Amino acid sequence: MVRTIEWRADRVRMIDQRLLPAAEVVRVYHDYRQISRAIKEMVIRGAPAIGVAAAMGAALGIRGYHGRRALARFAAVSAALKATRPTAVNLSWALARMERVLSENVGLDAERLFRRMRAEALSICREDIAANRALGRHGASLLGDRVTVMTHCNAGALATAGYGTALGVVRAAREAGKTVRVIVGETRPFLQGSRLTAWEMRKERIAVTIIADGAAGYVLKRGGVDCVIVGADRIAANGDVANKIGTYSLALLARHHGVPFYVAAPFSSVDFSCPGGERIPIEERPAAELTRLGARPSAPHGAAVYNPAFDVTPAELVTAVITERGVAYPPFARSLAALAEALPPLPPTQHS
Amino acid sequence: MVRTIEWRADRVRMIDQRLLPAAEVVRVYHDYRQISRAIKEMVIRGAPAIGVAAAMGAALGIRGYHGRRALARFAAVSAALKATRPTAVNLSWALARMERVLSENVGLDAERLFRRMRAEALSICREDIAANRALGRHGASLLGDRVTVMTHCNAGALATAGYGTALGVVRAAREAGKTVRVIVGETRPFLQGSRLTAWEMRKERIAVTIIADGAAGYVLKRGGVDCVIVGADRIAANGDVANKIGTYSLALLARHHGVPFYVAAPFSSVDFSCPGGERIPIEERPAAELTRLGARPSAPHGAAVYNPAFDVTPAELVTAVITERGVAYPPFARSLAALAEALPPLPPTQHS
Repeated sequence: MVRTIEWRADRVRMIDQRLLPAAEVVRVYHDYRQISRAIKEMVIRGAPAIGVAAAMGAALGIRGYHGRRALARFAAVSAALKATRPTAVNLSWALARMERVLSENVGLDAERLFRRMRAEALSICREDIAANRALGRHGASLLGDRVTVMTHCNAGALATAGYGTALGVVRAAREAGKTVRVIVGETRPFLQGSRLTAWEMRKERIAVTIIADGAAGYVLKRGGVDCVIVGADRIAANGDVANKIGTYSLALLARHHGVPFYVAAPFSSVDFSCPGGERIPIEERPAAELTRLGARPSAPHGAAVYNPAFDVTPAELVTAVITERGVAYPPFARSLAALAEALPPLPPTQHS
Repeated sequence: MVRTIEWRADRVRMIDQRLLPAAEVVRVYHDYRQISRAIKEMVIRGAPAIGVAAAMGAALGIRGYHGRRALARFAAVSAALKATRPTAVNLSWALARMERVLSENVGLDAERLFRRMRAEALSICREDIAANRALGRHGASLLGDRVTVMTHCNAGALATAGYGTALGVVRAAREAGKTVRVIVGETRPFLQGSRLTAWEMRKERIAVTIIADGAAGYVLKRGGVDCVIVGADRIAANGDVANKIGTYSLALLARHHGVPFYVAAPFSSVDFSCPGGERIPIEERPAAELTRLGARPSAPHGAAVYNPAFDVTPAELVTAVITERGVAYPPFARSLAALAEALPPLPPTQHS
């Protein structure tokens, strides 16, 4: 399996997702500032993956501190990590978990406190993979035996600690003996679809076809697509979904053509403090992502660019939300709340 | 004004649209085979522009021939030019016009026949610009005084002999004293939006904003877009419109958000022999357009690609078709036929 992010010898290792599939380069970081920059510059991306990266960055960040100084240090470390990308809720969710562990263990000496924080970060990483495997099984049960899934961006192993969310459903369907074919838009401007999703699928010999983002409507109209499955950067309490720019268009197109539109995400992507999608901050990325192709300009000097990295799909366009706790159907305000209450939380984290 | 294509000293000159906006390189051709290749490889593109290129290619092609040999030669020349790109009807429309002139003048000696064919090709070129100016005025009358127009691909001077269709409406609105702002999707894979439309607009200091193709739905939802105007590669008798891939998605998104969706095209783009869009051949372009970014691979080796260059927008999503003969409203079967019959054809071509 692809190793998106790994803790080894108290260093954080990430595959540089900006360079895939042309080159497989692993970056090694020893400092939370390096990790902040890696998140901001998209060495690592994907809501669950950047949550794990932030947790590991926080552990590195408080190393050598304890007591009140650890609390002050954490505040600075956490602010830096949180400032990298605003849309995905997993980042602040992971940091809140780290903060709780810190406050409960702030009396320990520096080395023990670091070990405790490190254990929590590793738990977040492990639990993400377990959640993806579980949501994958739930999602796979919704699919037929021969199925064509359209997806967008990369909600795969590379977007998570491993296994993936939307692609986790694809993987689980394959493991359950189903025949799965994936269609993915290239996902401009960062090309997560053609560079990352296609790369993951090819590695596991799952059939994948790349299309231009603009071709999605035409492909849906021609028929043969059984469902759309995407990931999520944040799901509001009412079921509105923030995800990679283009998701909203795809949801509307799917609805028009009568194709189910599923969102697959760990339960940590649900933000119950956010009542609706209009409250989700939408990151705008640099213009250069749309004005250069490698070394060459792809736009004239001086042209304005509007480059929102995400959009919000209203809950009424979502057929179901697939999580590790089960599948939520509309009305989501009720079904998501029920999943939050009815099931026990994930098993307590193991201490190293 | 940008010179897309020009006849000078019995050579055909074209600006190489593959290199814009990074470089302005003019190619000079003396042979119909070179022009066929230029059309196929998209040195020149845009339905009206490739119609003009084919007419000029046909004139070059029959040079030195007369009588029966000219007819046989034309058949070969025309077949080669027609085989380059199947979707735009203007190409076969222009060649049909050249063939008629040939058959009416086949008794002339070779040099006179060539001059007559050259004059016809130059008339097609001149008439295209005149048609665009006229349809621009018709279209501009539909717009308010301060207007934001979303467009797709490049239906500008570069897609025509000059002035443009969708961008002709923009230009005419500006000439009428209106304030126009343009939003354009970059239009993957060939990037006609960011490379060509933005370049044309910047040259004339018309405000232009580039977005990712996937952002169109989000931008329409945010509001502020007054209308969508696109060009056409072929309009069926019932009003179905073939145009650059992504147009169909955009038309559905415009309809959902209550934004008028206009198609601007010379009347030569209407194919009355084609009853509906399902009969329009859709060109598929090479996979490499979606698997490489300059020198770097943007997709893993072995990933499948589906790269249709066009799609069909059903007539029911089209608010109006703007032509040089006037504006057609639904039902288009009737309104387009009425424009064909009610108005005199364009003034007879001038002979040189």
